[in-house]
Amino acid sequence: MAEPRISSIDGKLAEEFAVPSHVGEVKEKMTAFAVHHATAGRRVVLITSGGTKVPLESRTVRFLDNFSSGRRGASSAEYFIESGYAVIFLHRHRSLYPYTRMFSTMNMLDALKFTSDDGASSNSEVVVNQQVLPNIAKVLKRYQEVKESRLLLPIEFNTLSEYLHLLKAAAQALSTIGSKAMFYLAAAVSDFYIPASEMPEHKIQSSNGPLQLSMNMVPKILSPLVKDWAPQAFVISFKLETDATILLDKARRALETYRHQAVVANVLDSRRGYVMVVTPETQVELILTEEDEKNDVEIEDRIVNNLTSAHNKFITRQGG
Amino acid sequence: MAEPRISSIDGKLAEEFAVPSHVGEVKEKMTAFAVHHATAGRRVVLITSGGTKVPLESRTVRFLDNFSSGRRGASSAEYFIESGYAVIFLHRHRSLYPYTRMFSTMNMLDALKFTSDDGASSNSEVVVNQQVLPNIAKVLKRYQEVKESRLLLPIEFNTLSEYLHLLKAAAQALSTIGSKAMFYLAAAVSDFYIPASEMPEHKIQSSNGPLQLSMNMVPKILSPLVKDWAPQAFVISFKLETDATILLDKARRALETYRHQAVVANVLDSRRGYVMVVTPETQVELILTEEDEKNDVEIEDRIVNNLTSAHNKFITRQGG
Repeated sequence: MAEPRISSIDGKLAEEFAVPSHVGEVKEKMTAFAVHHATAGRRVVLITSGGTKVPLESRTVRFLDNFSSGRRGASSAEYFIESGYAVIFLHRHRSLYPYTRMFSTMNMLDALKFTSDDGASSNSEVVVNQQVLPNIAKVLKRYQEVKESRLLLPIEFNTLSEYLHLLKAAAQALSTIGSKAMFYLAAAVSDFYIPASEMPEHKIQSSNGPLQLSMNMVPKILSPLVKDWAPQAFVISFKLETDATILLDKARRALETYRHQAVVANVLDSRRGYVMVVTPETQVELILTEEDEKNDVEIEDRIVNNLTSAHNKFITRQGG
Repeated sequence: MAEPRISSIDGKLAEEFAVPSHVGEVKEKMTAFAVHHATAGRRVVLITSGGTKVPLESRTVRFLDNFSSGRRGASSAEYFIESGYAVIFLHRHRSLYPYTRMFSTMNMLDALKFTSDDGASSNSEVVVNQQVLPNIAKVLKRYQEVKESRLLLPIEFNTLSEYLHLLKAAAQALSTIGSKAMFYLAAAVSDFYIPASEMPEHKIQSSNGPLQLSMNMVPKILSPLVKDWAPQAFVISFKLETDATILLDKARRALETYRHQAVVANVLDSRRGYVMVVTPETQVELILTEEDEKNDVEIEDRIVNNLTSAHNKFITRQGG
């Protein structure tokens, strides 16, 4: 099958997607992080998480977005850290974040109270109500330990352009540690965009009548990532479909096209209790039972467990 | 100018925008809230806040969205409450919220600490670090007072359909209190949508090539709101443009078309320091000076001040 040439994707990236001004600085930070942890004997995983924003106007009022809370990425980050990995967390601004994700659905002010009944007294402290947040002490302690040990490097993106350029920078940064690097590409990336040259500057006026949008296809960045930017790394992509009947076929086709190591395939409605991990040779179903759900087991625990074992074998085979 | 007939907008709403299942229950809650506070001598403002989500597929993976953090709506809600209003806060799920907005940009775990150095000890409390959040005691106290007095009724929407149906329900609920009701329509509502009948069920496949989207125009709900649903209320709409040269003209045209009381007009880049309040007879510029910004004055303080005075006069003129 004729693949788009790598150089053409690189060119497209530079031409049609605005380069974020801080990409060089972020790349240096990621390189230092990867080298530091690899030297200390750790593996490093790059997790991408959350949806991408695709502007319809250059002074953006409207944009196309992808459904993604970032839950899978945020919780996976915690399990990778428990498994001894250092984590670069490349996530959408304001998507779910490791550790804080536990109170993302609540209003924090509902979880706070004054130590004395009279909040007005000047030496009254504001404390967390542990009846509202029973796990807060455990989570805070773990958060502080992880912060102290610098095992988590958070990097934010907002637009598709930022995502693409930062992922390329991350891939180049992680190529320095060879097969010790894993890519866990869980972000929900847009397949479509409007090139900078075709974008109107100002807010599209509704007085012009119905909106006709013509959107180009986003270059398949997995291709240069696997072949060129980080050819020794262990790479996992994600497939989310709403139609279960086409899922496995799409996962297999992705593996054939991009020649990476695994696809985590899932269906929108069942994604929190069921995924399939597909490799060129195998396919494994990971399922949460009712018992698991009662015990608050998360499917990301199983996914990370499966993939860290596979990464182990991959490193051994490479003689790393 | 020939306006779309009200009945046709009502019909379109019912046919092309899925009715949320809880709309009847929410309408009852809003009616009870409005009647309770009006009886107690209070005015009631309905604030809409945040952007709307416009699905491209019925099992939604992709959607069109509008830029809006909900900052203006959330902070205005606080100032309306300080001015003696009761507030129905119809806001986008996870957009900024009154009082909690102050720590929306930070990771809450960075603002918490253990009372003893050893977080593991079983009787250690988790407290807010007031060096990180110096205003927390004041904000928490105010939040608790407002909650206690039930001056704030939060209602969430996510999609455009939910927004439209809930706004209609709110308008009908508030029509029971006549001119004591204000509508402060600050939400960033999409002008375009895909009718349910034309929406694909499943995720659009990128293998089909570039995406051609044809989107219809959203019915102008301000028209039936002013004429039919809440004809005695004081209604303010918002205009956000990126092009300052067309702003005033668009505000004037909106007032002529919909015959409501005021437009708050603002430009994307300067919206936090400058707005124009346009009425059929007047236009007033509200500007934050450098001095104001040094003193943490917010422009919403000025906007709310201007509009509550105008609402006063409006009620007097109506003999309310």
